[in-house]
Amino acid sequence: MDLKKCVRVIENFPKEGISFKDITTLLQDGEALKYTVDKIAEDLKDQNIDIVVGPEARGFLIGTPVAYALGVGFVPVRKPGKLPGEVERFEYDLEYGSNVLEIHKDAIKPGQRVAIVDDLLATGGTTEAAIKLIEKLGGKVVSTQFLIELEDLNGREKLDNCQVNALIKY
Amino acid sequence: MDLKKCVRVIENFPKEGISFKDITTLLQDGEALKYTVDKIAEDLKDQNIDIVVGPEARGFLIGTPVAYALGVGFVPVRKPGKLPGEVERFEYDLEYGSNVLEIHKDAIKPGQRVAIVDDLLATGGTTEAAIKLIEKLGGKVVSTQFLIELEDLNGREKLDNCQVNALIKY
Repeated sequence: MDLKKCVRVIENFPKEGISFKDITTLLQDGEALKYTVDKIAEDLKDQNIDIVVGPEARGFLIGTPVAYALGVGFVPVRKPGKLPGEVERFEYDLEYGSNVLEIHKDAIKPGQRVAIVDDLLATGGTTEAAIKLIEKLGGKVVSTQFLIELEDLNGREKLDNCQVNALIKY
Repeated sequence: MDLKKCVRVIENFPKEGISFKDITTLLQDGEALKYTVDKIAEDLKDQNIDIVVGPEARGFLIGTPVAYALGVGFVPVRKPGKLPGEVERFEYDLEYGSNVLEIHKDAIKPGQRVAIVDDLLATGGTTEAAIKLIEKLGGKVVSTQFLIELEDLNGREKLDNCQVNALIKY
């Protein structure tokens, strides 16, 4: 199945000069959604994954069905103030300003094998932050799985200690 | 399976006096996640559902695996400015102020049978707004499915033209 055909490219969103990859056209196609989730789950099924982690909010859209397909739990990584329990937080720099991500402290147990699932690998900053949070809790990130990779941004280079897989490349 | 035991109740979040139902403890339990999704999908499977709709962001966590389990597409309802294509918007009143939700105009085709899936039925305002958006696009909401219902808030009364189902009640 040619998944790239299911993605809609919208120019100048959210700002001038950005060529936005809209995955909602893929998600609303039942066959494409099933194919996407099955491909990622198939790649993970022999890696003894205990937990799938997905960053807010588009990571939820791919990560939870993958966790369901594998029969394991899902843990959200969220923006500040959204998680009600005790959290571990990680602040990281963006080109302009900074960003903070949080995870529940009791979400991952030491030694658990984790896969991070997200819609997009761009610069890799968000995924790198998620890895730091998971490692603080004692988890081991064995695989990162993306629907789309923007190859020119070299995000893959930041993630050199684990598997990096993407279904669609631009 | 007693799903209520998998939900963590956190007092005074996000503000004083609110007894917050934290579903992350359920999601991170692989068996509980699978049981939840299977129960909702089982209830929907004979209703000829074409599309599952889930409101941002916790609705994504239950809605996408349900769509995957049914083999149908998933359509997100989002806060303003998040969806890149042409949108239909709906503004509704809250106790203090108002809220706006958006859906892509081409996300649902006239005549499609839709199930709305979300984590929580409280006052029903968000679900009612999602129904209005789906109906504007010509879709028919045949079922609304919730992980949790707060019965004292009578949200169910706002949804009297379709099935309302909740797995956990408080």
